[in-house]
Parts: sequence; structure tokens; C-alpha cells
Amino acid sequence: MDNSYQEWKKLAKKEIRQEELDSLFWDTPEGIRIKPLYTAQDLSELTYTDTMPGLFPYIRGPRATMYVNKPWTIRQYAGFSTAEESNVFYKKNLEMGQKGLSVAFDLATHRGYDSDHERVMGDVGKAGVAIDSVEDMKILFSGIPLDKMSVSMTMNGAVLPVLAAFIVAAEEQGVAVEQLSGTIQNDVLKEFMVRNTYIYPPQTSMRIVGDIIAYTAKNMPRFNSISISGYHMYEAGADSVHELAFTIADGLEYVKEALSRGLAVDDFAPRLSFFFAIGMNFYMEIAKLRAARLLWAEMMAQFEPKNPQSSMLRTHCQTSGWSLTEQDPYNNLIRTTVEAMAAVLGGTQSLHTNAMDEAIALPSENSSRWARNTQIILQEEAQICRVVDPFGGSYFMESLTHSLAHEARKVILEMQNLGGMAKAIELGIPKMCIEKCAAERQARIDSGKDTIVGVNRYQVDKEDEIETLEVDNSRVREQQIQRLQAIRKSRSEADVKEALNAITQAVKDNQGNLLDLAVKAMRLRATVGEVSEAIALVCGRYEAKNNLISGVYAKGFLGDQEFMDIKQSVCDFNQIHGRNPRIYIAKMGQDGHDRGAKIVATGFSDLGFDVDIGPLFQTPEEVAQMALEADVHAIGVSSLAAGHKTLVPRLIECLNALGASEILVFVGGVIPRSDYEFLRQKGVASIFGPGTPVIQCAKEVLKLIEAKGKD
Amino acid sequence: MDNSYQEWKKLAKKEIRQEELDSLFWDTPEGIRIKPLYTAQDLSELTYTDTMPGLFPYIRGPRATMYVNKPWTIRQYAGFSTAEESNVFYKKNLEMGQKGLSVAFDLATHRGYDSDHERVMGDVGKAGVAIDSVEDMKILFSGIPLDKMSVSMTMNGAVLPVLAAFIVAAEEQGVAVEQLSGTIQNDVLKEFMVRNTYIYPPQTSMRIVGDIIAYTAKNMPRFNSISISGYHMYEAGADSVHELAFTIADGLEYVKEALSRGLAVDDFAPRLSFFFAIGMNFYMEIAKLRAARLLWAEMMAQFEPKNPQSSMLRTHCQTSGWSLTEQDPYNNLIRTTVEAMAAVLGGTQSLHTNAMDEAIALPSENSSRWARNTQIILQEEAQICRVVDPFGGSYFMESLTHSLAHEARKVILEMQNLGGMAKAIELGIPKMCIEKCAAERQARIDSGKDTIVGVNRYQVDKEDEIETLEVDNSRVREQQIQRLQAIRKSRSEADVKEALNAITQAVKDNQGNLLDLAVKAMRLRATVGEVSEAIALVCGRYEAKNNLISGVYAKGFLGDQEFMDIKQSVCDFNQIHGRNPRIYIAKMGQDGHDRGAKIVATGFSDLGFDVDIGPLFQTPEEVAQMALEADVHAIGVSSLAAGHKTLVPRLIECLNALGASEILVFVGGVIPRSDYEFLRQKGVASIFGPGTPVIQCAKEVLKLIEAKGKD
Repeated sequence: MDNSYQEWKKLAKKEIRQEELDSLFWDTPEGIRIKPLYTAQDLSELTYTDTMPGLFPYIRGPRATMYVNKPWTIRQYAGFSTAEESNVFYKKNLEMGQKGLSVAFDLATHRGYDSDHERVMGDVGKAGVAIDSVEDMKILFSGIPLDKMSVSMTMNGAVLPVLAAFIVAAEEQGVAVEQLSGTIQNDVLKEFMVRNTYIYPPQTSMRIVGDIIAYTAKNMPRFNSISISGYHMYEAGADSVHELAFTIADGLEYVKEALSRGLAVDDFAPRLSFFFAIGMNFYMEIAKLRAARLLWAEMMAQFEPKNPQSSMLRTHCQTSGWSLTEQDPYNNLIRTTVEAMAAVLGGTQSLHTNAMDEAIALPSENSSRWARNTQIILQEEAQICRVVDPFGGSYFMESLTHSLAHEARKVILEMQNLGGMAKAIELGIPKMCIEKCAAERQARIDSGKDTIVGVNRYQVDKEDEIETLEVDNSRVREQQIQRLQAIRKSRSEADVKEALNAITQAVKDNQGNLLDLAVKAMRLRATVGEVSEAIALVCGRYEAKNNLISGVYAKGFLGDQEFMDIKQSVCDFNQIHGRNPRIYIAKMGQDGHDRGAKIVATGFSDLGFDVDIGPLFQTPEEVAQMALEADVHAIGVSSLAAGHKTLVPRLIECLNALGASEILVFVGGVIPRSDYEFLRQKGVASIFGPGTPVIQCAKEVLKLIEAKGKD
Repeated sequence: MDNSYQEWKKLAKKEIRQEELDSLFWDTPEGIRIKPLYTAQDLSELTYTDTMPGLFPYIRGPRATMYVNKPWTIRQYAGFSTAEESNVFYKKNLEMGQKGLSVAFDLATHRGYDSDHERVMGDVGKAGVAIDSVEDMKILFSGIPLDKMSVSMTMNGAVLPVLAAFIVAAEEQGVAVEQLSGTIQNDVLKEFMVRNTYIYPPQTSMRIVGDIIAYTAKNMPRFNSISISGYHMYEAGADSVHELAFTIADGLEYVKEALSRGLAVDDFAPRLSFFFAIGMNFYMEIAKLRAARLLWAEMMAQFEPKNPQSSMLRTHCQTSGWSLTEQDPYNNLIRTTVEAMAAVLGGTQSLHTNAMDEAIALPSENSSRWARNTQIILQEEAQICRVVDPFGGSYFMESLTHSLAHEARKVILEMQNLGGMAKAIELGIPKMCIEKCAAERQARIDSGKDTIVGVNRYQVDKEDEIETLEVDNSRVREQQIQRLQAIRKSRSEADVKEALNAITQAVKDNQGNLLDLAVKAMRLRATVGEVSEAIALVCGRYEAKNNLISGVYAKGFLGDQEFMDIKQSVCDFNQIHGRNPRIYIAKMGQDGHDRGAKIVATGFSDLGFDVDIGPLFQTPEEVAQMALEADVHAIGVSSLAAGHKTLVPRLIECLNALGASEILVFVGGVIPRSDYEFLRQKGVASIFGPGTPVIQCAKEVLKLIEAKGKD
């Protein structure tokens, strides 16, 4: 340590009037210790310093010239119920400066159901576009030249028929498969950890991933065969270290899968792409992208690639949805700007910025424009693109990058010791780990240790109403059903049947390429549901086990009086009624976002409630039946995918039909305020918007259960 | 150059498919050349590397622990017409997390007129609070403990009576003068360059600055005697180098003034503070604050201070108003977030973030809250404060800091060669230089070289109306007049007269301390107008000369067809009418913001119009008279201080009364859309909101003049 650092230390102690500087250090939730000051001395302890962008280990960026030559791609993820509406929206955005397309599908499509399937009544056209066949895909891209436009598709479960439909739609536009550029998410491993839009069991799912990598390696040189996604882990509550580690570990698993079919690493690795979330922890998120590139380059070395692009991590990023608040929602424009800056200072290749109303509803035209403008303003007004990796050389940023990589390496090693990521996922370990992070964070927010402006501090007395977009779900569904009927009439049933049989057979025999077969079936106008079913015939649909994390939420409230009081009330309830208040946490429809449901379950359980968590993807009928059998006092419905107006009233009807009207129904999640009155009229006892502390929900639910008992 | 850099170069050339990298360099408007990549090699060429915060030359911050120990102060500048309303607003904001107060005064107060003065009819209570006496000041701070609260006052012209009123209000609250903390702007030099809220000629003005420094050095150890401001230069169009250079040069001039009265440098220099604007040029603005600290430390060395605080630059920052747009105004939340991040990554001590509607009106309650939340979110959600100077060591940022300092040093030297800043200002050189920058920038925007989202690209088809705050100017004025009458009744006229005479005498004799005398007069309930007049009796009010910059705007349009076409139309007009179209650019009321007026004058003149620029601070009567005498076709009124609804109709009445109703009146500047109809009904021919290209205005005005000729 040199003199001036000693002098600084003396001065710092004087400023804080303490003998030690400990109070200035910050231990992040990731377990990284941040010092108040970094100096040149810190650089001397690092493995990699003064690295160059475009060269190993790519800390400063995968390309030499980065944004100076070509800005990141503004790629807004969006889908508007029908292919027609989405098409209009895409064309408008392209005109307004957007450079790539990103398609959001509805949950029915994700889960491989045609729009006329009974299980997806509440899901069709909600949260994205409904695609049943090549015909829908052709409308989606009408007038958009697919040889010039890069198209990103967020699809995992029904990846075979959807990617096949895209290939056929292009073909019928006159664009050959080898000209297509873009990305398919095709990352099924993370679906088993979070998000849950898988269809098949892990083994079949991994085979599909491998078939797609093999097909694209051979036929689609400009297309990213996979987008290895940390995003959904972060959104489900993972901290940055875990998001980073699990994502890199997933990537290694896919590489091994592809290698196992005899592909050479350089045949496919250059077309692997990544996808990360960017949250509010500004410096950490910048370092995360730098560390991700470093780790990938290091890890890929073991496969001895010849092509440098095989170990060069390229990524898409999206600002975090979890950081958005329903309360005082214009604050979200500020948050998204901060996150977008972190993404681009970290060197992302493309970016989606969330709209400020996405905590409540699908983005409106205004909010979509502001989201896109956030990126245009950074590129064209703020001059962000003028230099490569502006943080390069920063004592702090280079150190943080190394620290993050160091912590992530430890987690990756743990996963490898378990036998690799697929194995670890089967054991449920990454999922539990993420759920634990989520419950800890929620406890920090609910107990006020973490500030969320407008939610747990600086609240507004009276919230303004903001206009939100509403989707007429039944109209969309009818339209899709008509189109399905027309297709089924005009196609050759025999040919379709033969093509579907070929798929089933290929799954059975573990032979052939499933994407190749799916293309043939879709060309003949098989539907997304039929292709999905042809596979499920062999392996069935996967059902996940639901575990409950306990104790984590309570730990965040050690010594908290309010927490103790509610716990006491639960005990009192037991004294009076001879049993604990019992709730059933339900997820209905195809909405697999279960972070909220899991946190509520953990919180209620830690407060002394008996909690049953239902399986994912239930129908209202199934929920009513299971709740009745479990003899619960209340059902908590968690809805994040806009299906609440169809599914919740149906649930109450079912309860009434079963003579179980004494079971209270409360709803939480993404519910626009304008729907509150509708839901109350349908019999919902209470509605908890985003940001409601779990202990407040518990208090209210207990009160309602007690009141009901007195009726 | 080492190997890996050579390898990077090869790769970069390959990526851009060119033999040379020239196309990747960026020459900023400041004349600084930015390279695409900075590496460790760049550090080796710098004077200062691996410096420590809190230690010379303070590049990394004036304090050792910076925000890690104590976040920057959130200090929102605001005034709401009356002392009562402002007081309520302050108290509410303090509750909501704001840590310091900042008072905006109305223009009548700035210019030393009581609210009942005939020249300020349109100005009272617009753009800030009206303060006429100690009584108003007491209401302003009622219930706010002045021994605990740091108060910043933006006051330059009427700095003596206003600061005196503050001291007396505190005294009558039971708070002694030595307990007061805060800042008075008191930076008159920049008023002569830009903004124009001076009252007296330069010499008397500098004496007042010196008296205040001397008084506070002796009596107010916790109070910043001056806020040396680059902000208004930037807002008037200066680039970052000129803002930086002129501000540091102004600072040196004040130091010399203070030294000339026998003060020791350490007696006053620790209480000098600074004030910079933060615009959209992200990296440059961060570097500007780092370079400012470096330059000040270097320059102060010549005075051989013993106290390190004497050469430690501390600054307040405000996000730029010029970067805000009237169009699609929610984009401004994004811009202000980017600017706020630059300010804090640069290490500001306190910050004002502009509200998103400030391009149109005074901030509303919502927009004020979002502005404040921008800072709270950075502090509490984005974890910005966790480390000192995160860019420290960055190859790029350290280089840019040095480049900026290098360019600014050259400008400072030029000013010194002219005999110092006061001399240079008398010659009008800095003012011309800033106006040239402004016209160049406007030409870049109007010609589309610089993008402004929503203004010259990515426009919205139909703008949403947003609610804006409106001030009932006449009500405020009446209330102030009543209070003035009450004061004049209850005070001892003889005592007041004696105190005012003492001030006049002290100015004449160049003896005594004017602030000390002002405190005595204000204590006896003299008014702001009376104290100001007592000084003006000796030296008069200053009138600036108005110069017109020419050719600069045209240069930005070299080869532009539309520009040539309009120029041709002007020639055609001359052919038909025997003379050029002639306009009079008017500034009425006490609004001294003349950037817009100057740019319009330059643009019209470059297009071939004959342009007269009226003096500042005219009454409608004076404008009508002068326009008539100059035989103009049209009057262009530039209004940025919300006086348009009073002053413009009055101007049209005056023209009519003089039988000059053929003279067209058009209005530009900050005019809420909701006022357009009102102004049109009063006879305004055309209204140009912020962001209208000057060539569009010219085209429209020419058409209107031609149409009028045909009537």
C-alpha cells in the first residue's frame, strides 16, 4: 500500500469519525464484499487486466469495435393477441427506429395447445400472439422481408412446431431457410427451474434442443439455435451470481448434448446466444455481462474450439420486470432507463426495455414508444455508443467483474459435482436455491430493509389511473377457432396424419431429426397442438413436483413486532377453531410464473398457516375440487398472465356448484385496478396488487376467514 | 504499443472493412477527438493517475468517502408564486425525502423591483416566489428550522436585500446568523454573459459580491458565499469546455476581488461553491465535473492556501433544461435520468433534477415528485452510492477528464490574456462565444445532424395534452401589494429612510459593508425594491448592448435545399416590395433568458430578413413604440418566464392604440398549448413552441407577412 492510500484512509476515518472503516463496506445479497474505494492496487490482484474487446477473454466485449461501428440492436419483445395486430405493431415500430423483431407468444402456444383446446380458454391471445399454424405465422410476417429482418422468438415448449411454422412461412414468402437470421429461445433447462413453459419430461426436452441445434447447424448458418436464458431466473428471484452461474452451466449442458450427437464444437457453438436480465443493482449488472463473457470464454476452452466465435458470448438483455411497480408507475421510466444504461455499459448485443405499465398490463402504444425511446435516446442523444467499454480499466469495475466471476465459478463447480446441470435440475436444487433468494428479497422489501420507491417508502396518497390495454380474449379465441376449422377443412387429412405419425415414430425410435419432421408436417398444415401431441403420445406431459421453502421469510423479520402479532393471531385462531387457517395457492391456466405463488406460500406458512400449493396449469374445475378435498378456508389465486377475468369467475362458479361457497377466494398478481370492481362483483373477497407485503395479505386473509366464520 | 493492441486494430479494420480506423473517431462539438478504444497505454500519457478522493487534485471527489458515507443532497429548486404556497411545498418535499431547500424567486425580485412596480406587471409570482420584505421571507420559512436546514437561494441582482431578509427572518426565528447554512448564488459575472438578471453596472456589481464574501467570511462560517455558475452558460448554449473554462475563470476573478480587500485566501475560499449544468452528452458531463475539480485545485495553488478546502471544488448540479422537449414530454423523464446519472457518477455534492414538464410550464405536483424520485431511486434502489468514483481508473474516463481540462485551460489562458474575466466580459467576448455555440447547435438540430427524439425524429402523430400548473398572476400581485401597503403603514418611515440613505452613502463613498447595511434596513422593514433603488441612485441600472451573431446558422445548412428556397423567397419579397421583410425581436418583462431570441435573430438574419433586437426588460408600450419607429412587418416575442398571457395582449393593445395594427405579432418560447387559443383570440398571428426549427418559423412568418400585404 502506498502513501497516498494511507493518507486517504486517515482522511476517511476522520470523515466518518470512526477508528475503523468497516461501516463503509457493503455486503451484497450475492455475498460479494464491496469496498468504499478501489485503486490501482486492486488491479494488480486480478487475473486479467488491460484486455482488448474482440479478443479472449472478451471482458470488454465480443467484438473489437462494438457500438462504435454498430449500435446494439433495439429489439422490443411484443405480441398483440392476433397475428394481424402484431403485424401492424411490428411494421410501425420498424418505421420508428426499431431494428429487430421479437415475438411474444400466448401461453396456449407456449404449452403446445391449439386455441380451441379446453384447457386454454383463459389464455388464448393473452400476453402474446396466438399461433396455431403456418397460416397465422404468414399473417404475422406479412410485408416483412424475412431475408432482411432478424427475428427473435421466445419459444421453448412448443419450439418444434413454432420454429417449423416460421421456416415454412419464410419458404412461402420465397425466402430460403439458409437466409433466415434471428434467434429461437429453445432453452428448456431453465423452464424446469423457473417459468415452467416446458411440455415434456427433461429427457425428451433435451433431445428436442439437440435436434434443433443439429438442424440449424446444418441449414441455418445465420440463425441462433438457442438463447441460453438467465432472464427468467433473475425474474424468479435469483441474485446475479446465481443467474450467471446457472446460465453458464445450462450452456455447458447444451454444448455437451450437441457434442454427444457427433457435432464438432465449431459447427454449432458460434450460434449459441445468451439472454440476461438487467436489474436495478447498477454496477453489479454491468459487471455481470463482463463476467459472463469471461466465464464462457474460460469454460469453452475445454472443448478446444478453433473458431474464436465458439467461445465468444453474445447476449440479448431485457430490463427487469420485477423492478417495475404498479404504484406511481411513471417511476418505472426512471428505473428502466437506469437498467438500460447498465445493459449497454455492460456491452449487450441487443436490448428490450420494458414499458412502464408492464407491472399492470400489456404495454399501451404510448408506453411502448417511451420504452423504445429510452434506447434511441441513449444511442442518439446521450452518445453512449461513441466508445468501446467505457468502464474498461476502472479499478472498481474490473475488480467487481472478477469477484462476480469468482463467485459464479464456485456455483458452477457445485453443479458439476452434482453431475451437471440437467442432473442438478432433476434434483430440484437450482429451483430451491432461486426460491430461497426470492423469499429473502421479498422479506427485505416487506420489512423495509430494501427501499422500493412508491411501494414501501415515498408512497403517493392517491394513485392516478393510467390507461391500460385490454385484450378481448373471447373474440381472439373465436377468430383463431374459425381459422383452425378452415385449415382442417382445406388440408389433406391423410397426409397430415402420416406426417404426424412420422414424428411419433421418430420419438419412439430416438431416430431422425424432429425439427425436420415438424417442418414437413407444418408445411402440410398440421397445427401446433397436433405436432405437440404427436410427441406427447410417447412421453406424456411433464408434471413438476412442488416444494415449499420454509423459514426464509420469517428470518427477514427477526424481532419484528407486526410479524409476531400476526403469528399470535394465527395461534389464537387455532385455539378457537381447533386447527390452523388453511389456504390453497392456485395457478390456473397456462401461466407458469410461480415466483409470487411460492413467496406467498412461504410467507403464509412461516406465519403459521397450513398451506397447500396446487400443481401448475390447473383448470378452475380442478382447483375447486382439490380445495374442497383439502378442506381449506381460502383459495389464493396467483395470476400474472392476464387470464384472471375468465378464470377467477369460473372458479367461483365451480365452488358454488360444489356447494363450497364458504371457501373464500382472493387474488394476487398483475391485476389492473380497473378490473378490481369486476372481480369483487364476481365474488372475490380481496385483491392484492403487486407490491403488497405478504404479511399484509396474511393479516387481511386471516381477518376475512375469521369474519366468514362468524356469519 | 503492445501486441494485443495491434491485434485489436487488425480485427477492428476487418469489422469495418476499411484500411483505416478514421471513421470510428468522433470529434465532439467541443473539439475533442474521442477514440473508439482506450487502453492502459492511454493512462501512461496522463499527468495524474491513480489519484485519491479527498486529496489533491481531487479528480475522484472532494471528500475521501463521498456518497459511501453520505449521499449527495437532493436539492430541488422550486418556488410557487407566493411564500405561503412555497412553504407548504417545501414542507411536503422535506417529508418525502428531500434533504435541502432551494428557492426560486420571481423575476421582479431578481431584478430588485417591489411587486407593485409598474415594470413587473407580468412577472410577479411567475417562475418563482415573490419576496418584497422580511415578512414574505418569514412566511416562506415558517415552521422550517433554519439552524438545521440548508437553504440555497438563486439570487444575483437583488442579492443584498434578499440575503439580508433571509438573515433577519432567521434572527426573528431565534436563529443566529452564524448558524445558517446554505448557498447564495451571488455570481454576477455570468449574468452579464447570459441570463441577464443583473441590476447594476459591472463595477458596482463586483463590489457587492466582494462585500458578501467579506460579510459571510466573518459572520457565516457554514454558508457558501457564492455559487459560481456554469449552469446558465450551458443553458444559453455553451459547450462543456466553455462552460467549464468560463466558470473557473469567473471563480478566479472572485478570488482576486476578495483578496483585493485584504482577506486571506483561507478566510473565504473554503466557502466558494460551484454550480454546473449536466446535459445529455453522458461521458463528457461526467468528465466535466472531474476536470472542474482538477482545474480548480491547480489554479488555486497560485494563492498558496494552507487549508486544503480552499482548493477543493464542491458543486451543485442541475440537469439541463435545454435538453427537455415540449414534444412527447415523458421522454424527458428518460433524459433527466441519464443526466442525473452523469452528475452523480461525476461526483456532484447536490443535485436538482428537472421535472418532465418544465419545457412547457412550472412543474406540477406529479412531475416534481418524479423528478425527486429520480434521485431517490438512484440512491436507494440502484446502489449508486456504494463506492467512491466508480469510473476511477477507466482508461477512457481518465483520458477524457484530462482532455477536457486541457481544452479548458487554453480558454482560461485566453481570458487571462485579455486581462481577466471581468475585462473579457466587458468586451463581450464570452457572450459572443456562447451565442455562437448556441447557433451552431440549433443549426445541427434544425438540419437534422443532431437527433432530438420526438422533435426532429421519431415524432408522435398526435401529442397528448398534459396537465400543467398555471399561476394566477394578478391574484398573486394583489396579495403582495396589500402586504406591502401593510408594511409601509406599520414601520417607522424615518428609520427606514435613514437606513436607506446609509446604503446610498456607502455606495458613493465606497466604504462600509453593503450587506451589513442591508440587514439593518431590512430589519426595519425596508423593501427589496427600496434597498435596490438606494444603490441604483448612485450607479443607475445597467443596460447591455445587443450584438447579432451572423453567418453561423447558415453554415449549418450548407447545401440545404429548403434553406436556399426560403432565402430565395426573401429575395423575391425584396423584388416585389422594394425592401427586405423586417422583424423586431422583443423581450418583455424581467425575463432575461435570451438564447432563443438571439438564435431566432441570427437565423432570420442569415435567411435575409432585416432584424432588430430590442433591449431586454422592455414594457409592451416600449416595444410597440420602437417597432413602429423601426417600421417592421412583424414583432417576434420571445417568452420563457410565463409572462405571455399578460404582456402579449397588452402589446397588441398598444399597437392598436398607436394605429399600427398591421404589424404582425408572433410568439415563441415556453408557451403551454392550452394558452394557444387564448393568444390567438387576442390577435397573435402565430405561435412557435419549443423545438420548432428556426427555418420553419421564418417560412411561416414570411408567408404571414406576404398575406398581410395582400389584405
